[in-house]
Amino acid sequence: MFELVELEKKIDKQFYEEKIQDLRQRLFFAQLEARKLKIPVAILIAGVDGAGRGEIINLITEFMDTRYLKTHTFWAETEEERERPPFWRYWRALPAAGTTSLLFGGWYENTFLDLAYGRIDLDRFDRRMQRRVRFERSLFNNGTYLVKFWLHLSEEGQKKKVKKIYKEYPEEIAKFRINKKNVKHYKDIIDAAARSIRITDRVEAPWVLVDAYDWRNRNLNVIETLVNLYEGAIKSHKEGVQKCITSNVNISYDYPSILDNVDLSVFINKKDYEKELEKLQLKLWGLTWQAHQKKISTIILFEGWDAAGKGGCIRRITKGIDSRLYQVIQVAAPTDEEKAHHYLWRFWRHVPRFGFVTIYDRSWYGRVLVERVENFATPEEWGRAYSEINDFEEQLTQYGKILLFKFWLHISKDEQLKRFKERESTPLKQYKITEEDWRNREKWDQYKDAVDDMVAKTSTDIAPWYIIPANDKKYARIEVLKTICDRMENHLKNF
Amino acid sequence: MFELVELEKKIDKQFYEEKIQDLRQRLFFAQLEARKLKIPVAILIAGVDGAGRGEIINLITEFMDTRYLKTHTFWAETEEERERPPFWRYWRALPAAGTTSLLFGGWYENTFLDLAYGRIDLDRFDRRMQRRVRFERSLFNNGTYLVKFWLHLSEEGQKKKVKKIYKEYPEEIAKFRINKKNVKHYKDIIDAAARSIRITDRVEAPWVLVDAYDWRNRNLNVIETLVNLYEGAIKSHKEGVQKCITSNVNISYDYPSILDNVDLSVFINKKDYEKELEKLQLKLWGLTWQAHQKKISTIILFEGWDAAGKGGCIRRITKGIDSRLYQVIQVAAPTDEEKAHHYLWRFWRHVPRFGFVTIYDRSWYGRVLVERVENFATPEEWGRAYSEINDFEEQLTQYGKILLFKFWLHISKDEQLKRFKERESTPLKQYKITEEDWRNREKWDQYKDAVDDMVAKTSTDIAPWYIIPANDKKYARIEVLKTICDRMENHLKNF
Repeated sequence: MFELVELEKKIDKQFYEEKIQDLRQRLFFAQLEARKLKIPVAILIAGVDGAGRGEIINLITEFMDTRYLKTHTFWAETEEERERPPFWRYWRALPAAGTTSLLFGGWYENTFLDLAYGRIDLDRFDRRMQRRVRFERSLFNNGTYLVKFWLHLSEEGQKKKVKKIYKEYPEEIAKFRINKKNVKHYKDIIDAAARSIRITDRVEAPWVLVDAYDWRNRNLNVIETLVNLYEGAIKSHKEGVQKCITSNVNISYDYPSILDNVDLSVFINKKDYEKELEKLQLKLWGLTWQAHQKKISTIILFEGWDAAGKGGCIRRITKGIDSRLYQVIQVAAPTDEEKAHHYLWRFWRHVPRFGFVTIYDRSWYGRVLVERVENFATPEEWGRAYSEINDFEEQLTQYGKILLFKFWLHISKDEQLKRFKERESTPLKQYKITEEDWRNREKWDQYKDAVDDMVAKTSTDIAPWYIIPANDKKYARIEVLKTICDRMENHLKNF
Repeated sequence: MFELVELEKKIDKQFYEEKIQDLRQRLFFAQLEARKLKIPVAILIAGVDGAGRGEIINLITEFMDTRYLKTHTFWAETEEERERPPFWRYWRALPAAGTTSLLFGGWYENTFLDLAYGRIDLDRFDRRMQRRVRFERSLFNNGTYLVKFWLHLSEEGQKKKVKKIYKEYPEEIAKFRINKKNVKHYKDIIDAAARSIRITDRVEAPWVLVDAYDWRNRNLNVIETLVNLYEGAIKSHKEGVQKCITSNVNISYDYPSILDNVDLSVFINKKDYEKELEKLQLKLWGLTWQAHQKKISTIILFEGWDAAGKGGCIRRITKGIDSRLYQVIQVAAPTDEEKAHHYLWRFWRHVPRFGFVTIYDRSWYGRVLVERVENFATPEEWGRAYSEINDFEEQLTQYGKILLFKFWLHISKDEQLKRFKERESTPLKQYKITEEDWRNREKWDQYKDAVDDMVAKTSTDIAPWYIIPANDKKYARIEVLKTICDRMENHLKNF
């Protein structure tokens, strides 16, 4: 989930200055226009300690007309608040038509901490999150535009920040900027946040994850998102329909992709490969039988660039499983029957019985990849799909009876070209390359955006994505097999 | 919740024959049209034993083109099904575009029984229900029209039905029509159903409650609802937008109202009234102080016809409470500030601190009463409001810290006329009667429909409606006070 915002992107000073002045103007005028149109806006700021939530709130306050902007902080509940239903204080903080509420932590941060510090269990946490989903839907349905920011730092990044702040300020001040207890519990807090974001990231009230490592990058991200939010709200208001504007909240200027950060130079030599492969296949054989006896299913899905080596990878896996225990499902264009149903229907159909392995060559992620890029699905449809997919995967994995692996095989654009040409010149492989492959290749950057969103929104606590460097096919295969064996081994211990 | 469908309405044979033939034709042609337009429809049939779920399924099957209609029954899970996530079997039963799925019990009945027989607890039940809400929303968003029927019998009605069936059929056959164990647990099953309907009755997947006492009435209700569903779906499909069609699923022919069934002849004589009143006010005084000490709040809201005596009733209550412990809130047209917010905002604002009493003279139910009748809210808006209100009341009542009383004071139309005239001719009361009152009076029948829907959809396990016969003002006051004292007394025992 946080892969994209741990890239520690840095923004050049001059670029920042130009950009931010322009955004500032647009934001100011958009706010005035929203005021006239009586649009209520709520901006929720959450994030890890040290990511600069306070600074962002100051920045927004500086940039906007404060007559129509109110900031609300939710400290420990006052006596007044404790003696009423928990949401009472949040209702009091909601924006009136034409105004903006800036919510520090909002209805999330206290609940993150409750889970992180073990004060409530997962069931209760999930219930609370579902209540938030209903609350936010009702806000949206009744006219409020809401955006939720998660300002992120990696564990490493947070440590550096803590050091810096404690160096710059005396302890009495520094401790109010960073809660050291929270820093110690980084992992627990991040896990709680990830779970919460999975459940509550909905088209009508999206989470925007922000890489807060570099303050310029952080500021630009937040302010540009806000500009998009206001301008989008104004546009849809003028068109007379209230629209979810998630598809607008992506940052438009040059931004690195998760994929750019993948080290593609990794490789394995032939001898090691053969030794490892044999060892892992043997291990997998044993694990899949064990899983069968314990009635644990395994679902492995592959997505990736054309010619990234999905087929070859799958063949190396299936060689390590008794043929009675697995099936491979090639996901091509849907059949007529499948097209006549909900897009998830055909995947539900093939959910294996407990104790078996199903391998999907492409998957339900087509909805947010090819269907998005090729406009087969509307922005509304693929925007909604992330949470529908998360719901689906929650159902698959909820009792621990199904282990779900999601692999994206990544290769460079050059490597793909090399492989395409090779295919064209090898008679036996010519069937593998089509006009469509060349067409997809032209949309490389659009697919990259789609992959970034997909990973950010669906790499979750219950079903993480594994991004596998696959310029070296052998390396990729070993990596995939290792990942599967390790997690299976671990998981089976619990049953 | 079930008040409206326990009226045991009977339909005359001749009326039935004419009506049903007409509906049958319309249903058939609508189905064909929906087929052409590729609209998928799901019809879920649930209800109490003996209400005729099987008969309804046979009827629908007889009336529709069975080439495009499939019936699915969900018995105890098969081994195949048990070895997959619980929803697997429901996905398999979903309709393809242009077809209809008829679902016996659907994804509800087994869960009702799980709760009724104590196999799961309330938390788990609620979680399951929320999953159903998300599932149904995703179905709707992806094009499926879904309607859920609850075929209802009162406990008495079910008993009669059981007798009849066991008289008509030999035991070996009768026992398959009615499960005697379920009959014994009538109350538990109804409670589970009511809770489930409260949580899962949403505009995009409405529950339709059917009075199944008379088979003709039951059949007409179901078939007419289906005709409205198909015709509504076709219309909105042609307009190019997918619309929730709840507002269409009300039955249009002459139907009794809950209010018609209220015995308005009840009265109390002056002497008894005075004795009772004094006794109850004294009791209330003690109870409200006790509640204050135990930090339990009480919210009492009044709705009712103009001149039904709300004010007088409220004065009799407040006389029984220490003035430091209560406040009365007159709900008039919203202020500018209130209008600028979510319609529930102004009610959240006034939620009392624990330990106090708040009395609302009119309430948040304005959304589904006056705003509906006067078209201040769109059908989409007031249609959605029922579940938003149920969510609100769930939050109010969830920890048992707030007791919520909802009273509808009912008088006859004649009685109202008498009181209006009296007001006009009594100088001291003239201020109480306005043009608006006369205008509202003209919309009596529309209000009656609105009250029926309101009670059916918001008289819930957590916050029931009390409908008080108020032609005799004194009787009404005593009844209200008694209701409050009894439930308070009971509730306070738990704290």
